[in-house]
Amino acid sequence: MTYCIAINLDQGLLFGGDTRTNAGVDHISTYKKLFTFSNGSTHAIAILCSGNLATSQHLIESLRREIELEEDNLLSKDSLFDCAKHAGRILYDIIQESAHNESDKLGDFSSNLLLGGQIKGERPRLFMIYPQGNFIEATRETPYFQIGEHKYGKPIIDRTIRYDLPLEQALNSTLISLDSTIKSNLSVGLPMDILLYEKDSYDLSRYRRIEEYDEDLLNMRQYWSNGLKQLLEELPTPKI
Amino acid sequence: MTYCIAINLDQGLLFGGDTRTNAGVDHISTYKKLFTFSNGSTHAIAILCSGNLATSQHLIESLRREIELEEDNLLSKDSLFDCAKHAGRILYDIIQESAHNESDKLGDFSSNLLLGGQIKGERPRLFMIYPQGNFIEATRETPYFQIGEHKYGKPIIDRTIRYDLPLEQALNSTLISLDSTIKSNLSVGLPMDILLYEKDSYDLSRYRRIEEYDEDLLNMRQYWSNGLKQLLEELPTPKI
Repeated sequence: MTYCIAINLDQGLLFGGDTRTNAGVDHISTYKKLFTFSNGSTHAIAILCSGNLATSQHLIESLRREIELEEDNLLSKDSLFDCAKHAGRILYDIIQESAHNESDKLGDFSSNLLLGGQIKGERPRLFMIYPQGNFIEATRETPYFQIGEHKYGKPIIDRTIRYDLPLEQALNSTLISLDSTIKSNLSVGLPMDILLYEKDSYDLSRYRRIEEYDEDLLNMRQYWSNGLKQLLEELPTPKI
Repeated sequence: MTYCIAINLDQGLLFGGDTRTNAGVDHISTYKKLFTFSNGSTHAIAILCSGNLATSQHLIESLRREIELEEDNLLSKDSLFDCAKHAGRILYDIIQESAHNESDKLGDFSSNLLLGGQIKGERPRLFMIYPQGNFIEATRETPYFQIGEHKYGKPIIDRTIRYDLPLEQALNSTLISLDSTIKSNLSVGLPMDILLYEKDSYDLSRYRRIEEYDEDLLNMRQYWSNGLKQLLEELPTPKI
């Protein structure tokens, strides 16, 4: 499985994803699920993938080839909406091509995407793209999307993320959401990839891969666990 | 759906469950999922149910009738292991009776149980019973079980529950685990039922139903949300 989350806030965008892929419990590998496309000045786009690895690798390769070889590509669009439409269509075609019968199509070959970023002339935007190729956009009221094993890491996001939250604070929620999922579910695993995009920067260099024994991660985890325990001790408990 | 959790600690047992049942999103009702069986002196037993409501109501009715009418019943056993075996066999029979074909049996008519408590001569024990009638017991290393929508409320339990945690503190984790699930998933809903059993008391009166506008719950929720936000603000964040 996979756990990826992306958040669209007033100050910019956040992307986080684990890197575990598995078929059953005995075929486990590490693969990147976060990919970026940028020209450094007018287009800054990131994609997170869940689902079938062959499908998502095929998609990313197709998008990269187009940028190299064709005029119509992710970096030629005037709106991120059109990028989502474009990626959605390619995703749908790949699934159709791999599937040999109807039940395959939305089953094993399926993949979901989060596509976010900014194109000059627009605010930063974020889309969740379905295997059918259609998509929805994040809004002020619902500024985040999750794909994959989303349940474990949802409560912390539901309790803390608001559109006007500073990016650095939302980063903390994102890291805890990812770390909690990794701790509670074997099919989601370290290292994790984090990308932070500041509005109007068109810069995708604030990226970091966090490995298992990363000292910052261990510090954060320790601080969080201790903090939760203390908070629980002080919690005004309903009398039972 | 449902979310129920039970924990077996050094000081005793904790049981928590929501009360929502739903078929789709438009047939929502409130039903108790926590049931107790006790003679006040040597047997104190609680059962939490998830899954098909007809199956679990049938089970509880059968267990109650046995206590009234038959010599061999939950309150006549010498060990909680035998109670789990007994309830498991009845559960299996009910599912077999309701199912009209093979795929029904583990599908729509299925139900999972958590059965815990204490019988004089034994320490408090806790079992998770499967629709097949077999069961596993909670241990020191893994002192808790969840049934139903268990993912949302798992991280807080994974980070805080240890066998030697005082009951009152584990109660806080349990309440937060339930409340987080209710907040993040529509199919799990208030009111919630909480039962706290102190070792060697054979007393099941520390029970409370917590309703939607319960002042204690609102206080606790407010305190928790504010505490989480503050903790996140202070968290040593990995530099991205």
